Amino acid sequence: MDHRAVSAIGPVEESSDEAFGSLPAADFKLAFRNHAAGVALITADAGDGPIALTATSVFSISAEPPLLVFSVSSGSSSAPTLARADTVIVHLLGAAQIDLARLGATSGIDRFADRSIWDRLITGEPYFPASPVWIRGKVINRMEAGSSTVYAVHALQAKLPEEGAETAPLVYHNRTWHALGPHSRYDG
Amino acid sequence: MDHRAVSAIGPVEESSDEAFGSLPAADFKLAFRNHAAGVALITADAGDGPIALTATSVFSISAEPPLLVFSVSSGSSSAPTLARADTVIVHLLGAAQIDLARLGATSGIDRFADRSIWDRLITGEPYFPASPVWIRGKVINRMEAGSSTVYAVHALQAKLPEEGAETAPLVYHNRTWHALGPHSRYDG
Repeated sequence: MDHRAVSAIGPVEESSDEAFGSLPAADFKLAFRNHAAGVALITADAGDGPIALTATSVFSISAEPPLLVFSVSSGSSSAPTLARADTVIVHLLGAAQIDLARLGATSGIDRFADRSIWDRLITGEPYFPASPVWIRGKVINRMEAGSSTVYAVHALQAKLPEEGAETAPLVYHNRTWHALGPHSRYDG
Repeated sequence: MDHRAVSAIGPVEESSDEAFGSLPAADFKLAFRNHAAGVALITADAGDGPIALTATSVFSISAEPPLLVFSVSSGSSSAPTLARADTVIVHLLGAAQIDLARLGATSGIDRFADRSIWDRLITGEPYFPASPVWIRGKVINRMEAGSSTVYAVHALQAKLPEEGAETAPLVYHNRTWHALGPHSRYDG
């Protein structure tokens, strides 16, 4: 597999200098407390064991070609594996998979201890069959941005929801989980 | 202001060829129907008039330095202005601002026709004061990705929610709006 160049998002050091007037980190976090996000579980194996982490930073950027992005903090225990993985599995979680979301968000545990809840695709990646939707994709770019890395992924293969199946999406906001459904619909 | 280089996310043409086994666009869209997203209104003015568009692709990637990203389809009427803007305002919308979300999502209208609902910051950008939270940021990178452009933004300034204020975030899922609150909390 070819590895494409890692590109940096701007000269971040330069842009954080005093003259630039950067927003304090605490204020930035407070602003984003008003913003909710869908929940995904990302898995990979770069050859030395599976990793899984819960991410609230997944979005699709193009359907043709099918591209998505997500970001991972450099402090994540999964970061070293993701930095080397050619492919990843992005599970888009529903409320019924809240246990998987918690699993990937809990530190200091073996997220693969229960061998009954995960398996490997024929292509080798670890995945969680309970998720109604997952996308297998090739990492086509990694962009360093402050303390995180933004991954761009080209979708290769997917498990799709069954025809007519209604899944309640799982949403994360300000340290709480939410389930969407008719009860949360809003028309103003 | 300096304009940094536009970098491409991988050689997309190459990666969409037959041998690569790209996921069909329809399948990709179907997979993402399981994924909800927070809602933001993005405004800018590159010198020839204000633009506003509703985006469900905003997330924070780093608090120190304070960086966020969003993506905009190249087909959006706001794309030409965003391609040239040095700064943008990202309004993180609550359910109470659903009218602003609709305004920025409606095609073929003058989104600035009602002069009573928007103003300009002293730095010149158009903004909507009704939003409880907005972030003013400098565009530090633009990355072409398929039919979209991913923007990386360094936050400079913000309007923050009032102390103790509880805002119900606005969420978008499968062509419907949702409001989060105690009624949508979910513990499995």
